[in-house]
Amino acid sequence: MTPAPLRDLLTTDNLTGLRAWLDDTGTLDIADELARLPQADQAVAFRLLPKDRAMAVFEALDPYHQQQLLDGLREDGVAELVAGMDPDDRARLLDEVPAGVASRLQAGLTPEQRESTASLLGYPPASAGRLMTPEYVSLRAAMTTADALSKLRRTTVDGDNLVVLPVTDDARHLVGTVALPSLVKAAPQTPVADLMCPELHRARAEDDREAAARLVQEADLLALPVVDSEDRLVGMITVDDAMEALEAEETEDIVRAGGSEPLGVPYMAASVFQLARKRAVWLLLLVVAAVLTVNVLQVFEDTLEAVIVLALFIPLLIDTGGNAGSQAATVVIRAMALGEVRFSDLPRIVWREARVGILLGAMLAGIGFPIAAVFFGPEVGLVISLTLLAICVWASFVGGMLPVLARRLGIDPAVVSAPLVTTLVDATGLILYFLIATAILSDQIGAATALV
Amino acid sequence: MTPAPLRDLLTTDNLTGLRAWLDDTGTLDIADELARLPQADQAVAFRLLPKDRAMAVFEALDPYHQQQLLDGLREDGVAELVAGMDPDDRARLLDEVPAGVASRLQAGLTPEQRESTASLLGYPPASAGRLMTPEYVSLRAAMTTADALSKLRRTTVDGDNLVVLPVTDDARHLVGTVALPSLVKAAPQTPVADLMCPELHRARAEDDREAAARLVQEADLLALPVVDSEDRLVGMITVDDAMEALEAEETEDIVRAGGSEPLGVPYMAASVFQLARKRAVWLLLLVVAAVLTVNVLQVFEDTLEAVIVLALFIPLLIDTGGNAGSQAATVVIRAMALGEVRFSDLPRIVWREARVGILLGAMLAGIGFPIAAVFFGPEVGLVISLTLLAICVWASFVGGMLPVLARRLGIDPAVVSAPLVTTLVDATGLILYFLIATAILSDQIGAATALV
Repeated sequence: MTPAPLRDLLTTDNLTGLRAWLDDTGTLDIADELARLPQADQAVAFRLLPKDRAMAVFEALDPYHQQQLLDGLREDGVAELVAGMDPDDRARLLDEVPAGVASRLQAGLTPEQRESTASLLGYPPASAGRLMTPEYVSLRAAMTTADALSKLRRTTVDGDNLVVLPVTDDARHLVGTVALPSLVKAAPQTPVADLMCPELHRARAEDDREAAARLVQEADLLALPVVDSEDRLVGMITVDDAMEALEAEETEDIVRAGGSEPLGVPYMAASVFQLARKRAVWLLLLVVAAVLTVNVLQVFEDTLEAVIVLALFIPLLIDTGGNAGSQAATVVIRAMALGEVRFSDLPRIVWREARVGILLGAMLAGIGFPIAAVFFGPEVGLVISLTLLAICVWASFVGGMLPVLARRLGIDPAVVSAPLVTTLVDATGLILYFLIATAILSDQIGAATALV
Repeated sequence: MTPAPLRDLLTTDNLTGLRAWLDDTGTLDIADELARLPQADQAVAFRLLPKDRAMAVFEALDPYHQQQLLDGLREDGVAELVAGMDPDDRARLLDEVPAGVASRLQAGLTPEQRESTASLLGYPPASAGRLMTPEYVSLRAAMTTADALSKLRRTTVDGDNLVVLPVTDDARHLVGTVALPSLVKAAPQTPVADLMCPELHRARAEDDREAAARLVQEADLLALPVVDSEDRLVGMITVDDAMEALEAEETEDIVRAGGSEPLGVPYMAASVFQLARKRAVWLLLLVVAAVLTVNVLQVFEDTLEAVIVLALFIPLLIDTGGNAGSQAATVVIRAMALGEVRFSDLPRIVWREARVGILLGAMLAGIGFPIAAVFFGPEVGLVISLTLLAICVWASFVGGMLPVLARRLGIDPAVVSAPLVTTLVDATGLILYFLIATAILSDQIGAATALV
């Protein structure tokens, strides 16, 4: 990628150079650079774009930057821009805009455009209804191919929404879909019924958008029909919108797995205060959970005082438990997101993870024993290696089980993040550690306690 | 989803019931159930499917289960199946099959099919060349719409590959693309040149497949042309294959973030030994890194012995540091994957994260001081709250910086996983803890040491 000249061109007021740069640069790169400018400059650079390119650049921005740009533009420019958007993109944008700006934006729409946006807004957030476009052309099963093609030639619906054509009956019930290529290749008198895809996938408008988008991906669809509760066609989810929704869901999962809430805006656009707020709740909850470890250690304070060398291994042991637990949790959470495992697999998962824990724990114990024994004596070596084994088994078991249980309880499994598993495994891991230590080092501990 | 009857129907040899179930069930669900069967039963259930459904079910399986199924099928059945696949799916399958099986599979292909598979195999793994299909229909700029449509009607290329049509010159150089809907809507005498999309995206065959797939997503494409080093068209990446590639890449990132290597096969299909092997290297590396914490504590052993209460807070403090560090790392890694931040942003990232750390640390310190002071006295309270502040700032700083540095050094930023950041921050966090403790508690430590 070339270095970013947009900011330099703007600050030096080099409008000729700026126009030449805008002519030579791709839509995505312009959008990228635009998003990185101060808000006032965004509007200036944007107004220098020819009208047709401006719309493409605008649609390439994410909703956050679209909104920022709108704020910087004059009233009439705003209305023009919104009227040119696809209804589903418009709904997503209006949804994230403050109520005052949303009505300012709606003001520029024709009544028809306003209605289709409003009907989209009636569906719950993150539903298939929000993701669909109500712009499509539907066919009837009894139509001939020639009729269907002539209907397509007359429509004003955007070409990208004509690649898959839903087929309905007289009452708008969905009966099938036809791919545009089969229509093009068929003889003119072939009825549409003969061209319908063998398998009919659909989503309900109130379905979760992630499930609908995942269906588009798994069944390799270019568009998925969306129906209401009476199986009547209400819209289509196109593959580009499905991909965008999946990306947003994956970002959510990944960020949750790291122990914070999704930002909802690009990283560099979020303020420091926003970043801190998204992490504060989890960090605080985890600290509260970690207070358990203080309590556990208090119980064993005498043992610690008697054999101070035990304290040296606390971080190593709890780190290892946390790592083994987050390895198990991450893999299981991903398998659940991809639909590879279900609740009924829980016993098998737990049994698999327990055995994985035994293998890993045995490996670490085998390596840890000679090293700890050389430096701290064979008894301490035995305590450390037995604890490594026990902690690995326990952590893998907990890490594999928690996400599946969370889903069963209606909690997003991604919330069972690596930090959460780590913190939970820590307190229990310490108990295992001191129980093993007390059993093996009973002589030393007894002697020291007697001295005091 | 209904409970899985496939295994029951097979074990009871209820072939009539089985056939009825196969008739009533969707392709994706059959593939799902098939993948969960023992290998021998997979082949039996598969052979009961009508030929056209069998291909659909086979393509719905992931490469791992496709291979497993092939192993269970008779020689002639295998060849038939492979010949019916799309060339790009075939190449991906052959790539993952042992050499012996690959040649057995290639044996069933026509020379033309074998050549197109082999040419795909010439590109480096995980390249755009591996992802593309060489099955497309290209147009010329001077053709009329009528000519173009009649060329499409004659072709045997699969309909899904006709949605976007590449336009080339006489020397096969890529000059544009035409969307099938514009072709359908244009007047018969319109030249193809007038219908070409305003912006031409392309990937080079040796490009990284993730970059090519991400371009399909960001530019909302239904297919992306792939060219060789002389800008000659060699294939097309369709949106369904791009989505599949992105899903695989995201799985890799997510699993790496949890501190293990990607499995390459579905979770339930991996053996316990495979699962353990993918995690062993990282777990071992992290334990070796954690040995640092033992060394740090050894240095401060006298301090610990003098004020044993310091030991009680070790897990809480290092957990908090690890959590703050993985929060920062996860968010920055995701922003990099989505192209939101670059290396030149490093100073801004570090400065942002340091301030986020101050906010979070101040919050925890404010809550921690009164609690610790009540139970362990004001001096210990001060040590704990100052350490919480210092550790939060340090961990956010390291967590934000490491992934960006890793990318600069050519390492996958996802490798800078939460576990890695946690482990690295732990040893340094302990040093901070004991430096602060030594400064504030110098009287108590001095007194105790003098006694000894």
